[in-house]
Amino acid sequence: MSQTLYRTLCEHVAETARLVTVRELLEWDERTIMPTAAGPYRAEQITLLSRMIHSRRTDPVLGDWLQQLAETEVIAEPHSPQATTVHRLQRDFDRQTKLPASLVEELSRQSILGQQAWVLARKNDDFQTFQPVLEQIVDLKRQEAAAVGFDDCAYDALLDEYEPDETTANLTRVFAALRAELVPLIAAIRSSQRGPQTDCLHGDFPIDAQEKFGRQAATQIGFDFARGRLDVTHHPFCTTMGPRDCRITTRYDPRFFSTAFFGILHEAGHGIYEQGLPADHFGLPPGMYCSLGIHESQSRLWENLVGRSFAFWQYFFSRARDVFRASLGDVKLEEFVGAVNAVCPSLIRVEADEATYNLHIIIRFELEQALISEQLAVADLPTAWNEKYREYLGVESPNHADGVLQDIHWSSAAIGYFPTYALGNLYAGQFFEAAQQSLGDLQATLAAGDFTPLRDWLGERIYRRGQCYSAAELAEQVTGKPLSHEPLMAHLRNKLEPLYGLV
Amino acid sequence: MSQTLYRTLCEHVAETARLVTVRELLEWDERTIMPTAAGPYRAEQITLLSRMIHSRRTDPVLGDWLQQLAETEVIAEPHSPQATTVHRLQRDFDRQTKLPASLVEELSRQSILGQQAWVLARKNDDFQTFQPVLEQIVDLKRQEAAAVGFDDCAYDALLDEYEPDETTANLTRVFAALRAELVPLIAAIRSSQRGPQTDCLHGDFPIDAQEKFGRQAATQIGFDFARGRLDVTHHPFCTTMGPRDCRITTRYDPRFFSTAFFGILHEAGHGIYEQGLPADHFGLPPGMYCSLGIHESQSRLWENLVGRSFAFWQYFFSRARDVFRASLGDVKLEEFVGAVNAVCPSLIRVEADEATYNLHIIIRFELEQALISEQLAVADLPTAWNEKYREYLGVESPNHADGVLQDIHWSSAAIGYFPTYALGNLYAGQFFEAAQQSLGDLQATLAAGDFTPLRDWLGERIYRRGQCYSAAELAEQVTGKPLSHEPLMAHLRNKLEPLYGLV
Repeated sequence: MSQTLYRTLCEHVAETARLVTVRELLEWDERTIMPTAAGPYRAEQITLLSRMIHSRRTDPVLGDWLQQLAETEVIAEPHSPQATTVHRLQRDFDRQTKLPASLVEELSRQSILGQQAWVLARKNDDFQTFQPVLEQIVDLKRQEAAAVGFDDCAYDALLDEYEPDETTANLTRVFAALRAELVPLIAAIRSSQRGPQTDCLHGDFPIDAQEKFGRQAATQIGFDFARGRLDVTHHPFCTTMGPRDCRITTRYDPRFFSTAFFGILHEAGHGIYEQGLPADHFGLPPGMYCSLGIHESQSRLWENLVGRSFAFWQYFFSRARDVFRASLGDVKLEEFVGAVNAVCPSLIRVEADEATYNLHIIIRFELEQALISEQLAVADLPTAWNEKYREYLGVESPNHADGVLQDIHWSSAAIGYFPTYALGNLYAGQFFEAAQQSLGDLQATLAAGDFTPLRDWLGERIYRRGQCYSAAELAEQVTGKPLSHEPLMAHLRNKLEPLYGLV
Repeated sequence: MSQTLYRTLCEHVAETARLVTVRELLEWDERTIMPTAAGPYRAEQITLLSRMIHSRRTDPVLGDWLQQLAETEVIAEPHSPQATTVHRLQRDFDRQTKLPASLVEELSRQSILGQQAWVLARKNDDFQTFQPVLEQIVDLKRQEAAAVGFDDCAYDALLDEYEPDETTANLTRVFAALRAELVPLIAAIRSSQRGPQTDCLHGDFPIDAQEKFGRQAATQIGFDFARGRLDVTHHPFCTTMGPRDCRITTRYDPRFFSTAFFGILHEAGHGIYEQGLPADHFGLPPGMYCSLGIHESQSRLWENLVGRSFAFWQYFFSRARDVFRASLGDVKLEEFVGAVNAVCPSLIRVEADEATYNLHIIIRFELEQALISEQLAVADLPTAWNEKYREYLGVESPNHADGVLQDIHWSSAAIGYFPTYALGNLYAGQFFEAAQQSLGDLQATLAAGDFTPLRDWLGERIYRRGQCYSAAELAEQVTGKPLSHEPLMAHLRNKLEPLYGLV
């Protein structure tokens, strides 16, 4: 009886997932290849799908089914696919139904207006025109937090949307520890007289060759093109529109090697995770990614821990030199690996290196918390932003466009999202450290171009588990430790201190 | 009051159109760029959308609204957008609701099984394995005709789905007249000792160059790439997924000029029609194409009446020679225009020339009528097929794969569709003749590469009218004549008799 009800529930949710993946296609198409004039109608199509999806997700019948199942043997075994399904769906249902329809609509409206205002404000380097709409958004997000409810602080309720079960207190503790070690390391790097040259990354890198080489590398690390695609876009992303249809995107700079190549590794890392999720649970919690932080850990692991390692380039550099002979023909392996690991504090998050990137995130985490807790007024945000950039990174913003206005997130009401980027780096450090301990001479297999042992190790422990464990539980199980800044810091020190003559 | 109801109706139908266009994107993506492994899940997404669309189209509330509006001033003005909307929606609603749900499901199921059986049967050149499923399909189509109802013959009810208001009797009359003149003309061409050589169309035609040249030609005749795309597929088509998003497709043969180039002109012709429909009525009858026959008239007009004309190549041939210097460098304009107008009776419909193509269609029209009226058994279809090919075209089928099994249509339950292809040629002939009479020296403007007068003329008279007139009414209004074989035959005689030394 309860198994029949469980199957009915799953079919309902799988059907919603079919609509969600259709919306993914609409959005992917819009961001890659859609004719320019088609935008307004595409927005209508997406709005209609979103309305249908929201209505299915808040259907009272779903609440009834979940309530009935909560008292049956279906949920008897914790972390089983069945218990996970009921538990995670209940959680999503509660969040969705706690939000008044008027608030959902107003958030959606202000998010569209916010993005429009942001595009203009950024173009004109004018924070003041953006300020009122951001004030509205911050106010609505506070209302959202109040509606959802929280124990400790309002920011918890927002964080929860992107990183379930994570808390502001825990992140504050770990980020503070990370910042305390990272700021002096980066300051030391800035002051060092030694360090790598990056000239070899700038030169003639024809787009066709970049695409071919990037596609080869993505295939080699394990992205399956029979179940995926690689296309061009302005703001790269990875999206899934079916159990065997995961699409990654990138952008090419014909005069710079790193943008596309490491972008492809990053998105392929997301894609390998998606392709490794259990297809037979597609669209249901046991077949979905654990959290945004865990998702980002996979992109960062392949981009940075693997993709910037000496071992990786022991395999790939001769191949790169064959493809980009004009620019890399005379470059040595050591010189190239040094270049792709150079650290240089800068203004723009999306262009930041592996080390300073974390500080960009910590700044945003601290500022958005202060906004939500009303310790900081939106009017004072630019000043606070600039002060933190000076303090943590030692850089000065010449304008707002490349400062407080550089990211789209706040304008689209995504407050609580940024910390998942740094969480990704932290988890990547932990997972990679554990993999190295577990797999014996991992560096030797990477240097041989064999990425299967690492991918299988991650697949077994992370991909196949879907949402059966929370991010924190997963980290504990896979690494034996709770979230910690230590593996990431150890990795950065091991690599950067010799590179910059700091040991 | 009735205006409010009318607006409610339009909003309901426009929302259904949003779902229809989303399904178009799902199908376009599947047929052009989707990863190979993604097929089964895509089928689930499409099935879900189809179910939603069908349920909206047969919603009893729609029937109530239409009934109420039928007695108001909304429909007072015949051929007005409002009257057209109510009239055409009523017609579609009646057809949809007359079909029992069980029949709709069984047709959908047999159509999927039919296509699977057809792919295998064609591969193995084995009609017998296809015969039982085609018998099922023919039987279901007879049931469909009975459910929909008809005055004269069952085939009328099937034809009506693709070519509203057209009748079997009218087509029989016009196709018989066409056949009576075409068969001897083609026989004379076959017997002629003179005629064009086609060697120049075979050679080195790099795909990149073909794409660039095809894109230029499509742009020049009026396909707007800001509101459209051109992509690659196996079986070319044109699809619309929004008022400003029309996508055409083609396939390239690197050793043959005609496949892609005339394919692109053909699909661009469809696309120009779609792009010319009134965008402010998008998704409603006044903003939709009149009939498949009228749609095909636009593709055929640009592909054949314009695209194979001497005037067209007076403008384009020097450009083609610049692009394909290796293959066309030494070819003369007259020789090239002769080659693209060569007539050669052959087995395969989709490869047929402008003249013989009509006989391929007439054969199918006669056979499918005979199947539906039970004058021909499915078991006897291959023999009947081969006899007609011998009689009308003078060619012998060496096997079933290139004979009776060559088309997908019957396997997918599309019976009554074929005649719209020949209708397209007939209407194209009529429209082009009328345009020539109306526009003065049309050939001179074509030779100057100016396609705007012709496109505007068609746009004013055909595109902008959507479904406000039936195909027959449109032909009468635009050309002053009912459907006739004469303009097409005059065009073919004028061109082919001199080319083959028959005058």
